[in-house]
Amino acid sequence: MVTLTFETERKTQLLDITASVREAIARETGSVAVVFIPHTTAGIVLQASGATATGVAPDVEGALERLVDETWDWQHRDEGDRNPWAHVRAALTASSVAIPLEDGDAALGDFQTIFLCEFDGPRRRRVLVSVV
Amino acid sequence: MVTLTFETERKTQLLDITASVREAIARETGSVAVVFIPHTTAGIVLQASGATATGVAPDVEGALERLVDETWDWQHRDEGDRNPWAHVRAALTASSVAIPLEDGDAALGDFQTIFLCEFDGPRRRRVLVSVV
Amino acid sequence: MVTLTFETERKTQLLDITASVREAIARETGSVAVVFIPHTTAGIVLQASGATATGVAPDVEGALERLVDETWDWQHRDEGDRNPWAHVRAALTASSVAIPLEDGDAALGDFQTIFLCEFDGPRRRRVLVSVV
Repeated sequence: MVTLTFETERKTQLLDITASVREAIARETGSVAVVFIPHTTAGIVLQASGATATGVAPDVEGALERLVDETWDWQHRDEGDRNPWAHVRAALTASSVAIPLEDGDAALGDFQTIFLCEFDGPRRRRVLVSVV
Repeated sequence: MVTLTFETERKTQLLDITASVREAIARETGSVAVVFIPHTTAGIVLQASGATATGVAPDVEGALERLVDETWDWQHRDEGDRNPWAHVRAALTASSVAIPLEDGDAALGDFQTIFLCEFDGPRRRRVLVSVV
Repeated sequence: MVTLTFETERKTQLLDITASVREAIARETGSVAVVFIPHTTAGIVLQASGATATGVAPDVEGALERLVDETWDWQHRDEGDRNPWAHVRAALTASSVAIPLEDGDAALGDFQTIFLCEFDGPRRRRVLVSVV
């Protein structure tokens, strides 16, 4: 298992972690990589990036903020820094993704990018990569 | 593979199953645990619990009920007990989560809790745990 | 790893791929099957089908179209064929599902069906199946 660390910079942010995950995978041997996030206000999503996918990451950020509205009547807000919407947004993404390996590398699609989804940043976040 | 059984008590309920899953993992050997739910109106979510996370589980329950509205125009309602919204709410969570193991135990974050998400309770539910 | 290919027929479509995935699993040996989709406008969901679940797949299709509204103010639409809503709908489903095996077959629940979720069809789609 490899532990990766990232610093997010915004409250809601899809951060491309593909290169770091691929480096972690290259250190291990097996046929499937598990990418896992040990946090409850952040998630993992595979989505598009690159020249032909401009705007996709901001659109996913904006859509999750819009879907889970901060003005709803929340219970988890009895202290100043509570963030119930961040937990729900994270619950709508994934805590883990399992990616098959081909020739020792993640068999991602052409535009597929591994994103850490921050919903309560900026923060330091960990991601665990385990190859089986 | 270990099969766990749980009884849910409410229509919509996040039920903490962490202790049972950890016991199941302790019986097996490997580097990743797969937690799988063989139902289509229930899911698995890793979210926060504990003294500093009061209200998170009820907020996730309330948000999923709010997001997927029972008054929408549904097709799957031709018999009395049909529950299309429960299927959609489950589809927005996960059927499986893969968790890396460290020293034989799930490498969960400090506040991370494994929840069975019931959307059509009360019912008896099964959860499968497989370590690879 | 087995690569399966499917042709979707509609813009938004839950396509039952259970039989093909089970055939792929039967060719491999192990205890967990990973079903992975290398696309960013399509996903994988386990949901109900069959005589007692009529309408579930159309209801999931309709709910995801309704939840993620095409009239929102999107960034990813500077060319004619951009489809930001398809990316967000896919992000709300899953890129991978890990299914425990029992006697070499997927330990699915009675009504549980493996669906490829198309959100930008019709298209040719690939699904990777890896058994570990």
